[in-house]
Amino acid sequence: MKWYFIASLLTVLTSSQGILTTLSQSNGRYNYDYATVPFLAEVFKLMVSSFLLWRECRRSPLPKMTTDWKTVCLFPIPSIIYLVHNNVQFATLMYVDTSTYQIMGNLKIVTTGILFRLFLKRKLSNLQWMAIILLAVGTTTSQVKGCGEASCESLFSAPIQGYMFGILSACLSALAGVYTEFLMKKNNDSLYWQNVQLYTFGAIFNMGRLLLDDFRGEFENGPWWQRLFNGYTITTWMVVLNLGSTGLLVSWLMKYADNIVKVYSTSMAMLLTMILSVFLFNFRPTLQVRFLAYKLFLGIIVCTMSLHMYFAPPNLLLDLPSTRKRDPESLVNVPDDHRTDS
Amino acid sequence: MKWYFIASLLTVLTSSQGILTTLSQSNGRYNYDYATVPFLAEVFKLMVSSFLLWRECRRSPLPKMTTDWKTVCLFPIPSIIYLVHNNVQFATLMYVDTSTYQIMGNLKIVTTGILFRLFLKRKLSNLQWMAIILLAVGTTTSQVKGCGEASCESLFSAPIQGYMFGILSACLSALAGVYTEFLMKKNNDSLYWQNVQLYTFGAIFNMGRLLLDDFRGEFENGPWWQRLFNGYTITTWMVVLNLGSTGLLVSWLMKYADNIVKVYSTSMAMLLTMILSVFLFNFRPTLQVRFLAYKLFLGIIVCTMSLHMYFAPPNLLLDLPSTRKRDPESLVNVPDDHRTDS
Repeated sequence: MKWYFIASLLTVLTSSQGILTTLSQSNGRYNYDYATVPFLAEVFKLMVSSFLLWRECRRSPLPKMTTDWKTVCLFPIPSIIYLVHNNVQFATLMYVDTSTYQIMGNLKIVTTGILFRLFLKRKLSNLQWMAIILLAVGTTTSQVKGCGEASCESLFSAPIQGYMFGILSACLSALAGVYTEFLMKKNNDSLYWQNVQLYTFGAIFNMGRLLLDDFRGEFENGPWWQRLFNGYTITTWMVVLNLGSTGLLVSWLMKYADNIVKVYSTSMAMLLTMILSVFLFNFRPTLQVRFLAYKLFLGIIVCTMSLHMYFAPPNLLLDLPSTRKRDPESLVNVPDDHRTDS
Repeated sequence: MKWYFIASLLTVLTSSQGILTTLSQSNGRYNYDYATVPFLAEVFKLMVSSFLLWRECRRSPLPKMTTDWKTVCLFPIPSIIYLVHNNVQFATLMYVDTSTYQIMGNLKIVTTGILFRLFLKRKLSNLQWMAIILLAVGTTTSQVKGCGEASCESLFSAPIQGYMFGILSACLSALAGVYTEFLMKKNNDSLYWQNVQLYTFGAIFNMGRLLLDDFRGEFENGPWWQRLFNGYTITTWMVVLNLGSTGLLVSWLMKYADNIVKVYSTSMAMLLTMILSVFLFNFRPTLQVRFLAYKLFLGIIVCTMSLHMYFAPPNLLLDLPSTRKRDPESLVNVPDDHRTDS
């Protein structure tokens, strides 16, 4: 399977995630406990991966599976990072408004590039660094709200702690991604075996969170397993399956492509969601919508250029003689043998 | 003289032009006839160029000067294009508001690239095309006004004629630049001799415009030469000298560098003016100013990346082995012998 096919699929699914989540609400609120969605998604991913691993085990050669304690104990770490990240996110939102928070979220693109360089020791060319910065600027451009909308009042007027937490949040988010990539590429273990470990811990941590919510609410609504599917509709199930599938694709990309590919996929998904929102949720072309579409247009140009700068072969960009072979290491840090994996 | 030194100087002078013009107003209006400024600037440029040509004529070898009719008659054409352009500009502003007009003005960057390719047959790499588009997007980003400001009401709500005239205006502006470059590089004539011809026609056309204004006003205020310096202050003179110097620098760039260098200079000048305006004319950091500064920041990042993409040597961008010699033709279309001209 080509990595860019998976990346495009990730873009589409990530984009539908936002739209499905909106559609799963009725009258602007959730009739189900939203915290159950990531838990069920983990269970779904675990089931799919277990099935695929079982199928792989029936064939020969047997899949490579490292089961020593020292390797297995690395797999809960992404869940722990996400746990810390969720709390930092919560702390950030105590200081900054959601608009500023959303804009600071784009910092994650740059921090991923930095940690990718520092921890995974992948070299990026100057052009690729510029592409990463432009991607962050492009997504930010499309999100800038006009001054005069309510959001402007509070935009960038948060206390300094808000920004510190925002930066920490961006670093943790990048760290989780980079660490997962390290874990998946660490050895030649079967992807499905790695997934099974990852999602087992994921399910446990999510279960812990549901239990913690129950303790906080003093079991007012009963334990979580009794009300797990309360208020679930067909759309809610689609949200769960969609989130699970997104996770499986990300995991594939972490093993056979890299974090930067994932960052591009999810950034493009954000733009796609905004395009769809303009068409789906704004029927009349009001001034506000026209203004949104205009900023979105500028953002899309910048992001498309960035995509091209990062991934296009140098001879295409610079019109060098086409005999110069593309150097896969300096261009995209995806090993060529994996890139065209079936 | 290195071309980038001249280009930087042009950026600084173009930027001061806007600020000086604002400072030359008293209570928001001009106490002098603004149409006299470009005329006097043409006269200033003619005087400087004549002096330099005279000095050049005293040395040997004598400067190369083509005086046949067929060459001289090409020199009024830029003035004619600007004349048409001014009228199209006027027509555009009858349909669109100034904000939309200002934003459409960035189209000039792209049309210059296109005409540069078509008429001057200069090849640009894909990366350079992307850089040009990003420059246009970057300058536009910094100009986007928030919705809620009065401007939003009318932004992009003009009739189709407005946009047609806007595009025509961008093409004419680019054509004037590209034609001037063609004229200056057509032969090895002395720059000063070419300038003398260019500015003689410039002065004549500007004089014609002043005379036309007089006829339109039925000589109510007397002929233009009687009220030429009416209301002139020291700042007005600085506006004249600054505009004249800008013109001389542009002319130098047209001969020894190219239109794209000029476009970068003036776009950077626009950003510089906006930076200075934030500091000079907005003393309190209001929400509005904070919002302006934020958009400007995004625009500056995009434009800086664009500048780097266009002019940086490929081995710096792609980390190719540094033994690869920079190919001046494919990188910047400035002949190397001129680039380091004294």
